[in-house]
Amino acid sequence: MTAIHNDCDIVTLINVFHVKPENQQALVDLLIEATERTIQHQPGFISANIHKSYDGRRVVNYAQWQSRDHFEAMLKSQDAMPHLKRAAELAESYDPILCEVVSVHHL
Amino acid sequence: MTAIHNDCDIVTLINVFHVKPENQQALVDLLIEATERTIQHQPGFISANIHKSYDGRRVVNYAQWQSRDHFEAMLKSQDAMPHLKRAAELAESYDPILCEVVSVHHL
Repeated sequence: MTAIHNDCDIVTLINVFHVKPENQQALVDLLIEATERTIQHQPGFISANIHKSYDGRRVVNYAQWQSRDHFEAMLKSQDAMPHLKRAAELAESYDPILCEVVSVHHL
Repeated sequence: MTAIHNDCDIVTLINVFHVKPENQQALVDLLIEATERTIQHQPGFISANIHKSYDGRRVVNYAQWQSRDHFEAMLKSQDAMPHLKRAAELAESYDPILCEVVSVHHL
């Protein structure tokens, strides 16, 4: 289980990949493999949460890192780079949003 | 605290709003007000989690609903509609992604 809080000092990456429907599952599989093999072993990793849209056209990774420096170090790591490149090739476009949680409301 | 699981039957809405940086905080405030006054009282609401991007250009609402029918009923409700209309006007564009969690990885 991943927890979303607004009172802890972490960095959230919401990466929205736009894909052709015929590539959606392949991109999901690739992100899961990349996370299990490499990304979750990088310093500062907290979580990755892979979502697929019902319309078949988007995959979203909601990820948490201990700091922006940790996230940027992962982007440059030799281990992660081949996986990231394959994900970028499989998607038509992607929009990585680095952000902070400002408000949490729940039942 | 909001929890992300991949073993429960809920619907996730990831709504990415693109805004001018001078409007980012106003949109955050509006979404918080709309959630507290109206949306969290609608049937089927589980959570809303408001994020602001460090680049000032995006606001993301990561929301959870018990079902797609509950979410769609909220969109049509007379209570929520004025808030949703104001949010749409304040944003330059928005991309609501209805999706399911397929994989959760964490430390």
